[in-house]
Amino acid sequence: MSDKRFQPVSGFDLPRFAGVPTFMRLPFAEEGSDLYKKTDIGLVGIPWDGGTTNRPGARHGPRQVRDLSTMIRTVHPVSKTKPYELCNCADLGDVAPNPAGLEDTLERVTKYYTRLQKDGIVPLSVGGDHLTSLPVLRGLSNGKPLSMIHYDAHTDLFEGYFGGTMYTHGTPFRRAIEEGLLDPKRVIQIGIRGTMYDGEDIEWGREQGVTIIEIDEVRERGHEDIMRQARELVGDTETYVSFDIDFIDPAFAPGTGTPEIGGPDTWTAQQFVRGLRGVNTIGADVVEVSPPFDQSGNTAWVGASILFELLCILTEAHKARG
Amino acid sequence: MSDKRFQPVSGFDLPRFAGVPTFMRLPFAEEGSDLYKKTDIGLVGIPWDGGTTNRPGARHGPRQVRDLSTMIRTVHPVSKTKPYELCNCADLGDVAPNPAGLEDTLERVTKYYTRLQKDGIVPLSVGGDHLTSLPVLRGLSNGKPLSMIHYDAHTDLFEGYFGGTMYTHGTPFRRAIEEGLLDPKRVIQIGIRGTMYDGEDIEWGREQGVTIIEIDEVRERGHEDIMRQARELVGDTETYVSFDIDFIDPAFAPGTGTPEIGGPDTWTAQQFVRGLRGVNTIGADVVEVSPPFDQSGNTAWVGASILFELLCILTEAHKARG
Amino acid sequence: MSDKRFQPVSGFDLPRFAGVPTFMRLPFAEEGSDLYKKTDIGLVGIPWDGGTTNRPGARHGPRQVRDLSTMIRTVHPVSKTKPYELCNCADLGDVAPNPAGLEDTLERVTKYYTRLQKDGIVPLSVGGDHLTSLPVLRGLSNGKPLSMIHYDAHTDLFEGYFGGTMYTHGTPFRRAIEEGLLDPKRVIQIGIRGTMYDGEDIEWGREQGVTIIEIDEVRERGHEDIMRQARELVGDTETYVSFDIDFIDPAFAPGTGTPEIGGPDTWTAQQFVRGLRGVNTIGADVVEVSPPFDQSGNTAWVGASILFELLCILTEAHKARG
Amino acid sequence: MSDKRFQPVSGFDLPRFAGVPTFMRLPFAEEGSDLYKKTDIGLVGIPWDGGTTNRPGARHGPRQVRDLSTMIRTVHPVSKTKPYELCNCADLGDVAPNPAGLEDTLERVTKYYTRLQKDGIVPLSVGGDHLTSLPVLRGLSNGKPLSMIHYDAHTDLFEGYFGGTMYTHGTPFRRAIEEGLLDPKRVIQIGIRGTMYDGEDIEWGREQGVTIIEIDEVRERGHEDIMRQARELVGDTETYVSFDIDFIDPAFAPGTGTPEIGGPDTWTAQQFVRGLRGVNTIGADVVEVSPPFDQSGNTAWVGASILFELLCILTEAHKARG
Amino acid sequence: MSDKRFQPVSGFDLPRFAGVPTFMRLPFAEEGSDLYKKTDIGLVGIPWDGGTTNRPGARHGPRQVRDLSTMIRTVHPVSKTKPYELCNCADLGDVAPNPAGLEDTLERVTKYYTRLQKDGIVPLSVGGDHLTSLPVLRGLSNGKPLSMIHYDAHTDLFEGYFGGTMYTHGTPFRRAIEEGLLDPKRVIQIGIRGTMYDGEDIEWGREQGVTIIEIDEVRERGHEDIMRQARELVGDTETYVSFDIDFIDPAFAPGTGTPEIGGPDTWTAQQFVRGLRGVNTIGADVVEVSPPFDQSGNTAWVGASILFELLCILTEAHKARG
Amino acid sequence: MSDKRFQPVSGFDLPRFAGVPTFMRLPFAEEGSDLYKKTDIGLVGIPWDGGTTNRPGARHGPRQVRDLSTMIRTVHPVSKTKPYELCNCADLGDVAPNPAGLEDTLERVTKYYTRLQKDGIVPLSVGGDHLTSLPVLRGLSNGKPLSMIHYDAHTDLFEGYFGGTMYTHGTPFRRAIEEGLLDPKRVIQIGIRGTMYDGEDIEWGREQGVTIIEIDEVRERGHEDIMRQARELVGDTETYVSFDIDFIDPAFAPGTGTPEIGGPDTWTAQQFVRGLRGVNTIGADVVEVSPPFDQSGNTAWVGASILFELLCILTEAHKARG
Repeated sequence: MSDKRFQPVSGFDLPRFAGVPTFMRLPFAEEGSDLYKKTDIGLVGIPWDGGTTNRPGARHGPRQVRDLSTMIRTVHPVSKTKPYELCNCADLGDVAPNPAGLEDTLERVTKYYTRLQKDGIVPLSVGGDHLTSLPVLRGLSNGKPLSMIHYDAHTDLFEGYFGGTMYTHGTPFRRAIEEGLLDPKRVIQIGIRGTMYDGEDIEWGREQGVTIIEIDEVRERGHEDIMRQARELVGDTETYVSFDIDFIDPAFAPGTGTPEIGGPDTWTAQQFVRGLRGVNTIGADVVEVSPPFDQSGNTAWVGASILFELLCILTEAHKARG
Repeated sequence: MSDKRFQPVSGFDLPRFAGVPTFMRLPFAEEGSDLYKKTDIGLVGIPWDGGTTNRPGARHGPRQVRDLSTMIRTVHPVSKTKPYELCNCADLGDVAPNPAGLEDTLERVTKYYTRLQKDGIVPLSVGGDHLTSLPVLRGLSNGKPLSMIHYDAHTDLFEGYFGGTMYTHGTPFRRAIEEGLLDPKRVIQIGIRGTMYDGEDIEWGREQGVTIIEIDEVRERGHEDIMRQARELVGDTETYVSFDIDFIDPAFAPGTGTPEIGGPDTWTAQQFVRGLRGVNTIGADVVEVSPPFDQSGNTAWVGASILFELLCILTEAHKARG
Repeated sequence: MSDKRFQPVSGFDLPRFAGVPTFMRLPFAEEGSDLYKKTDIGLVGIPWDGGTTNRPGARHGPRQVRDLSTMIRTVHPVSKTKPYELCNCADLGDVAPNPAGLEDTLERVTKYYTRLQKDGIVPLSVGGDHLTSLPVLRGLSNGKPLSMIHYDAHTDLFEGYFGGTMYTHGTPFRRAIEEGLLDPKRVIQIGIRGTMYDGEDIEWGREQGVTIIEIDEVRERGHEDIMRQARELVGDTETYVSFDIDFIDPAFAPGTGTPEIGGPDTWTAQQFVRGLRGVNTIGADVVEVSPPFDQSGNTAWVGASILFELLCILTEAHKARG
Repeated sequence: MSDKRFQPVSGFDLPRFAGVPTFMRLPFAEEGSDLYKKTDIGLVGIPWDGGTTNRPGARHGPRQVRDLSTMIRTVHPVSKTKPYELCNCADLGDVAPNPAGLEDTLERVTKYYTRLQKDGIVPLSVGGDHLTSLPVLRGLSNGKPLSMIHYDAHTDLFEGYFGGTMYTHGTPFRRAIEEGLLDPKRVIQIGIRGTMYDGEDIEWGREQGVTIIEIDEVRERGHEDIMRQARELVGDTETYVSFDIDFIDPAFAPGTGTPEIGGPDTWTAQQFVRGLRGVNTIGADVVEVSPPFDQSGNTAWVGASILFELLCILTEAHKARG
Repeated sequence: MSDKRFQPVSGFDLPRFAGVPTFMRLPFAEEGSDLYKKTDIGLVGIPWDGGTTNRPGARHGPRQVRDLSTMIRTVHPVSKTKPYELCNCADLGDVAPNPAGLEDTLERVTKYYTRLQKDGIVPLSVGGDHLTSLPVLRGLSNGKPLSMIHYDAHTDLFEGYFGGTMYTHGTPFRRAIEEGLLDPKRVIQIGIRGTMYDGEDIEWGREQGVTIIEIDEVRERGHEDIMRQARELVGDTETYVSFDIDFIDPAFAPGTGTPEIGGPDTWTAQQFVRGLRGVNTIGADVVEVSPPFDQSGNTAWVGASILFELLCILTEAHKARG
Repeated sequence: MSDKRFQPVSGFDLPRFAGVPTFMRLPFAEEGSDLYKKTDIGLVGIPWDGGTTNRPGARHGPRQVRDLSTMIRTVHPVSKTKPYELCNCADLGDVAPNPAGLEDTLERVTKYYTRLQKDGIVPLSVGGDHLTSLPVLRGLSNGKPLSMIHYDAHTDLFEGYFGGTMYTHGTPFRRAIEEGLLDPKRVIQIGIRGTMYDGEDIEWGREQGVTIIEIDEVRERGHEDIMRQARELVGDTETYVSFDIDFIDPAFAPGTGTPEIGGPDTWTAQQFVRGLRGVNTIGADVVEVSPPFDQSGNTAWVGASILFELLCILTEAHKARG
């Protein structure tokens, strides 16, 4: 049973729209504090979008996901998982980025996650654009390539942009594979779609051994079959989960930088995440929620809902690891 | 054949965006007027959201549903039902609520629907938050428990909130069952989903005999099978239909107080309502349309479209009862 | 291989949000210019909504579709079609309409498309309301009735409005059939739904031989079966394709004048258009995108995405014709 | 003292967001009804924007102004005028326009206002685009040129558009002067601003004797001095008042078709209308509120507030005439 | 010099859009904590709108003002006041209201502010609707009538609504005067405007001795003269300041429940608050920010900016009292 | 008289919402083309916001300003300037930035403006965040410090951010002064306001000799007096004009990254720009229009209107220089 101080504020005590909004209404655990030291799962914001080649705004994602996440209750409706009874979960605040410094930010995030890794805290991150996943992986991999289950409309396996720019939100996983942070043979990308530049990203990925499931295959085979394949692919290896909100159709999640029509609905997205049960997840993120492109907050509400799904998965996996 | 005065204004005569907006462009029938006395089906607004524990605004629902409903034409596209030829339908205006008085409002609405019941008018209501269904049931039940088919993301069977508050939009049907207004064994709730406080509402409901169909079962069995069960459950008993707009996925109907992702699309919602044909419906409502959370009016358009579906059902049932 | 000058600006060179927005970032080919003379497929805007009986704004459609279309890349993700290698495609600008002159505008558009037809340019048009399709057909038919595959929530086969007004966005295809521009036996309408005035439009259409597929049939039979029927119906005759954005459910494309709930999602819409492969398409349009009813631009993004699907179809058909 | 049936519903009885929205919550008086026959001041909607050369949507103006007008109370805060005690005021509904027929609509509106004039009802109209003022003047002038006080950013004195189109929302007052409906020497236009085509409209107006006050003069002289001039100019002649919402700066009233920056704020606009006291006003309008360009309803709220100011002026003038 | 722990996070260290949003990026001081005990000025949210007779949503005010307040820097641009060097300021979180219980909420808030008063913390509150000011005054007055400087479009001195409802956001100051919480002869209300029910509120107020400055007087005399009068009126008595966001014109602050056009701009509003220098302020509030009516957050940005103005005033007054 | 090819498309020929949107509907002049060689004044977009420390989105500014600028007509309403008769004006398109490369972008822009300077084209630029003005000045200064008249809420004279980041949108003019691009004694900044970090930016500026006019001085002295001072300060030296849209109050121009309340209205802003007549302007910009924070386009409309004011100034100055 978890520490009482790690229980979220109940909506029966304080209405869900009230109070200072932390992720899931969890306690805020400052670095080095007593709470921090007892934290198992740390929810962290990475408010940065300096790698965005298209529509910006994901820097505002963590703030709005925090806001909307206060509408999430405490028990999973299907698995009945009670994450706050399984582990000590806390909001660790945001990594301090440099909005005008790409390399500086990559270093700051890397350092932050290296520390978390050392402190034994499993991170559940909220971006930020997808380039933020790269320094997270740098911090977590610890010299050993990780597996990854990746939900997205795009592979993010591009070589470069704008005459040789190697670090953008379209390139993180190419860099991660090149740097040995990911084992491409244990990487699966689900939901890929949208018009293409030339397809070189997919080709390169498949050459490395990445399993890429395009949207028509998603529709044809369904979530159960694909998640069975994903679970088999990663086995019991340490697995990172990256969830780009643009995986979901833009009717459901319009607030994102690079929307692609023809995506899955939110129910399907939920099933995909629920299919992660049993996977040895050692970290996860939800990225690319861009509030300025959906001031209603609906996209952030979808993001917060997926975040809770991931939290249930992470707490179960953490518990399972003992 | 119905009275000529009860025909809606045609879009071929006066464009659909023109004119004073009554529900479905029907005549406004003031209480006690000649029109009122000849009304079979009365469309009524209950502009009140004082039971809302989360995001308010449903008080503005009737106004905007009226506005959007002027885009509805007169013939059902599938059943070919022509409601205005079957019965005399009219807009009765709004119940006068007390925005700052919860108990006062419950009494005002109860009194209003008691009168309607006495006057033999079948009500089709537009909320307002879901607590408004309680006084409607008080007015209609007339000492005999009603059956209910209920579309919603939530059971609304909670015990209480905020240290003992018994009347909120999360509790109406618990109160209704306790008060003997509903026969729980003839109540079916469809579409339940979203994170849970502790599941006590579902447990309590099932103990009373309520049939609760969660969203995964909806997806698995489909609308035809579930509506067959619903029709069997209620048989030919007097049945109330309550349609919470949050039954539908928030991508389709974002303007509501407590959205839950992973819901059905509008086509499925239409099929669920069409499955009510043959049920002895004696009243219905569409609730929880909250215009401030969707200033585009799209949610109200969905609400108006569902309202027409319900109107076809109610007029057919009324005609069938003779 | 196409002329180098007809290549769109790459998002790797100039970010997708930058530059003067032409359709698909193609070159602008002024009438009579050298580029114009070499153009195979001309993308044309018809910014006019004077035939709109309900909510206006489609006059702003071409502008916003141009804006959003700059996010489209160059290769089709499923068919791998590279339209810009198959044909010379260009943005021809907008037809100059008369916002306050219905008949004048019909003449202007007819004249414009008559010229295009004479100049051998295959038009891919962006409306504008659906009445704009009528003068396009007048320009293209050249005395020989065309076939048509038509995606829409409405038949647009009405006789007239407002006491005898024969030209509105609800009547273009009745006029086109009456004028001999379309062969009704080779016309198929897919996606029809929504409440009805009296059904006379559908009756009349079926009497002429038009194949009308209502939404429930769409759901039941699926896109593959229906498109097989469509392809068989038109055979190798010259076929026009008209895509009303309200074919798609308003959750996905809210910015339109006459939304009807219960429509297909965008993935399904894409499959329907992809099913046009092999059809002898000699022109196409996307109409009824009304930006003021969706200032986010999401509807225009859907419109631009469908436009690219149609462009792939048109370029393949053009290439196939030699 | 006015008839009791002409009192608006009080916000103390029925909350201001409740009920079927008529203008100012006044009774709806159907043509020919007993109420109609006793009506002194008729509020009328003209939901038509077929003369709009730029951004459409004013056809939705009357509907949204009705909605917002239910927030207006009954007593003027400065003059203490109680319009509903001075005269019988009623909502007469909307003139039925033809959205796809410019000339047809001009005739319909002319006929409607000719009848009102004959029936002795003073009209207070809500547009609609500014072309709607032309048929109103045709109905009211009765062979005798009227005076006019006109608040606007534009003169609406243009000769024609698009190669000879004589009837647009930029031309009504040129036509009215040409037709002898207005006496140009007793016409004053206040607030003119914005970039110019060539200035021919202003030149022509001044040649006819129209007094045109551009925005810098408005700022310099102030409302008191200008309204003194306006009152002197019209003396005790029958005077029409036309208020284009774009007179006000677009920060205050963005929902309009042709906004021009640098306009007066709403307080100043109120003072300008209040300066009409003592003028022999025989009709007035508020035009060019375009809800799709301000879905918040704020512009309609400004429009409704100005409408009440005009209603106070009209009822006082009507009372004064006996 | 204040405690170092009470310094807000700098925008040079952590970007202004990052981090868990507390008011002004101040530390969160939980009741009873060490920080709490050292707090001089406590910023408190009262997220409740159960007294709202018109458009709801002010319950969401504190959350969004917190969000936007993170863009406020630390030094006043005119007075050069550095509030965080003068006093220990902290975010105390929100009072837990009962969204479905009016009287319960009044008691909860009264109890909360009674405690604050006892603990010697000067409150700067963020509503919530204006009824929340009543229990704040009950908590602060301590048996001795306070003075009040009140910025608002409305007097909030109404007797009752809806047939005898005595507690709404239109009645707090009538109740406060009746209960002896305010000394009406030392109450000044500035900015009053908008159409009136019957003027009884103003009459009653003036009979009690309240100084009521209507908007035309505000425009005529200007802020300096009026604030001189206000300062003289309250002298050195303990003075509460209540700032209803609808004091400001709705073009600047549209997100509020009862907007009235013709109000002052934000620069003028700033001058009015700056005129409070030297007043013995013992508490203040900003109320009626309703985010659902301005999802852009602009109104909350105005609210946060005014909040900082008030914080400077309160810290100076607190410092002056020693 | 200017070349006929440089005339904008007339709104009388092609409605203002139609056509491919270039700045002011001017011809697009590709680098090196014949048109380019004859261009006197080049309108250029710099779609980049990588220096933004707060809310991003200004990268979308040029696109939306182009869109809205098509509503601008051709003659100045007060000065009667006809810019297109004075000079050859053209849209030169956008500088290609690197969204993920700060230094790369600074170089690209510098190179672009160096070329323009060499080619004798006077640039009128649309940002983009304010850091883009730095490379423009690098391109234009040509070794000789320029004078500058600068309208803004902020000095943009900060030393650095985030631990030593020297290039952000808060630092361009400090860098420009340090690099000798501007002569601080001939720089005037008008409109400065908003809460301060520590005031070091203002202090440093004043030490260098920069004339800084804070908002209260603007209100007190008025635009005429301040612009007289500005004209005297720069004399007949080569002067750059930089117009940050946040100079204007956010009620009028909400779509910007760092809004500050209490700013001037648009009429006042127009007078300030009109006061530049006679100044030897050799370039100008409008920056910080951020469409995602105002999807209505109203801010871009303000930006386009100011752009036309600046164009009139630049063409007159260019003409005057012969």
